[in-house]
Order: sequence, then C-alpha cells, then structure tokens
Amino acid sequence: MRPDQLRLYLVTDRPLSFGRDLEWIVEEAVKGGTTIVQLREKSLDTREFIELGLRLKRTLAPYGVPLIINDRVDVALAVDADGVHIGQSDMPYEIARRLLGPDKIIGLSVENMDEVAEANALDVDYVAVSPVYGTPTKTDTAPPFGLDGLKRAAALTRHPVVAIGGMNRSTASGAMACGIDGIAVVSAICSAPEPQQAARELLNLL
Amino acid sequence: MRPDQLRLYLVTDRPLSFGRDLEWIVEEAVKGGTTIVQLREKSLDTREFIELGLRLKRTLAPYGVPLIINDRVDVALAVDADGVHIGQSDMPYEIARRLLGPDKIIGLSVENMDEVAEANALDVDYVAVSPVYGTPTKTDTAPPFGLDGLKRAAALTRHPVVAIGGMNRSTASGAMACGIDGIAVVSAICSAPEPQQAARELLNLL
Repeated sequence: MRPDQLRLYLVTDRPLSFGRDLEWIVEEAVKGGTTIVQLREKSLDTREFIELGLRLKRTLAPYGVPLIINDRVDVALAVDADGVHIGQSDMPYEIARRLLGPDKIIGLSVENMDEVAEANALDVDYVAVSPVYGTPTKTDTAPPFGLDGLKRAAALTRHPVVAIGGMNRSTASGAMACGIDGIAVVSAICSAPEPQQAARELLNLL
Repeated sequence: MRPDQLRLYLVTDRPLSFGRDLEWIVEEAVKGGTTIVQLREKSLDTREFIELGLRLKRTLAPYGVPLIINDRVDVALAVDADGVHIGQSDMPYEIARRLLGPDKIIGLSVENMDEVAEANALDVDYVAVSPVYGTPTKTDTAPPFGLDGLKRAAALTRHPVVAIGGMNRSTASGAMACGIDGIAVVSAICSAPEPQQAARELLNLL
C-alpha cells in the first residue's frame, strides 16, 4: 500500500454511530476525504459480518478506498477485502500472511515499544500505535503512548505508522508532527453529526 | 469422510467442562471411543482459539480422530483442522468450500425440514439435525425435531446425519433407530465425572 493511504483512517463502530446506517457513515466519510476504512465488528454473526463487509466493499469500490477487516481473516477472505488489521491477541502475523497471500494489506496494532521493535521483524504493511491517548472508545487498552511515546515509536519502526486513541480535531496536528503517516479515528467520524464535514475538517488539519 | 466417523461426535464446551482441562476431556473421550471432535468456542480471542486448536490437533493426531472447528474458517485454516461445522448464521457453505478446498469436511446444522431440503443442493459432508430435544446447553435453538422429525429428516436428506440436542444415554438408542449415522453430545461427555467411561457407555448403546 502507499503510506499516503493511511492519512485519514476510519475505524467503524456501530454502537458509536448511534443507530445510523454504517454504509451511509462510511460513504460520507469517504466523500470527506477518508483514505482507508477498517470494518470492526465484535458482536455480529459471521454471516452478517460477511454481508456487511460485502456492502461496504461495494460502497468503497467507486472511490478506490481500501477496505480492511478487523481481526477476522475468514471474513476478509470471504469478501475479498483489501486486507486485515490484527491486534496482539488476534491471529499471529505469519499465519495471516500465509492465508492472505503477499498482496493483501496487513496492519498490526502495537501497544508498547517492545511490540514496535518486534514488528520490525515482520513484513506488516503498517503499524497502528495504540493508544496515543486514553479513550472512551476502547477500555481494554494498554497505557497511552502520549506524544513523546508516539515520536519514539515513529522513529523506531521501519513501517508506515498510523496513530489511534483520542485522535480528533484537537489532537490530530500534534500527532502528525510526531512523524507519522496518518491518524485513525472512531468517534470523531462515527459519532459526528455530519461525518463528511468531520472527515474534511480532520483532513485539513493533517 | 466416512459416515462411521460420525458415530459418536463430541462438541466441546468449556463452561460445561467445569474448569477441567479441555485437552484431557477430549483425550479421555477419544480413548472411550469418540469418533470425531468439534471445537466450539464463542469467547476466546482468535489467538487463544488457534492455540487451543493446535493443542487439540496434536492430542487427536495419534488416534486418527478428525478435528472440526465450529464456525471459524480462519481458525480451521490456521490450524489445518480437518474441517469446519457451520450453522445457518455462519459463513455460507459455498464460500466456506471455496476457502477450504474440496478435501476438508464441512458439516452444516439444519434446524427445520426446509433447511434439510436446501442442504440437498449442497455438497456438505454431513448435516447435524438440531435440536432433536430441547437442551440446556443451547438456549437459542429452533423448536425440537423430536424423533418423528428426526426420522423424516433422515429420510429426506442425501447426506450422512448426526443428531444433536438432548443426546445422552437415555436418548441415544432411540435417535439411532431413526436411521442416522451418529449422535453429537456436549454435556453427556464434557460434564461427565469420567468422560472416557461416559463415551464408552454411549458408544455401546449406538
């Protein structure tokens, strides 16, 4: 993938979308300049997850924006998504790469400096430094990196970097100044009254 | 697969195993004559699920007993299991077959006569008629088939049949008399004080 595709990275969250249609939110976000979309689902049946993935793939195709599936390599294969995003408790990278082949995008969450260093031994396509700040979106996260930690992580890694955790209009510029490729947002777009405008405003800050 | 491999089908359930080691229960069950094992996990992280699958695969290999993964085609691929068991809300059969290839076992749960008929259009390796009786193991199930329904399902399907739901020492013989290939049990083995003996006693009834 091109690192500039990481610039404004939307991670979906249906509960934080307040009952609004996820396809609508995603399309609005992309019209506003979102460069990559990760479908994250923790409660859907596999069949519903696949059906939603297929719908989002159709939504994104005209825009050329990649669709990434969180955790579930089976869903990614079923919908022929552009890749997966895996955390440290998901499928190990080497197995995911074997199942997905060399051309799919594989992103990896790194939650401390040891994991940043370990990821240098893997051919992941990007790392997501998580979390930069504490966030109400995820409560099971590691201690925050802060901007100093983000800067050190960006210097240590050999991969493109996206920052996640507490990224919004107030924090985006400071994070980008740490030498990263993009920011990943959840509520800053999913919960925004106007997701398209929210994406556009974020992009203008980056 | 050979239909006789369905004769005594263990579906794992950690909560119903009362904290006892699942590998021990599975190995005891197989020593007692269990012919196939399905690993069913609904709460583990993907990585833990894969690690448990790999351990069970090593446990079963010396006995030549197939390991089937419930729902998760990614886990089945990661551990190179013998196949998957899918329900009506899991990955559609055609996609699972495409991802797993022609040689893996794919079993399908059928919960009413329409689904039994529809499964005749698919090259599944077996169908699991579910549930024969109401059961405390699963509370989200369809209305029970009963023995009459099981007999009609066995007559209608072109596939090998395993019966699930309320199968134990009291019900096993009656189910087998309906013209099926085997019974699937959860608590009758997982919750038994002596899983090996429980399996042996069940097998003697079949």
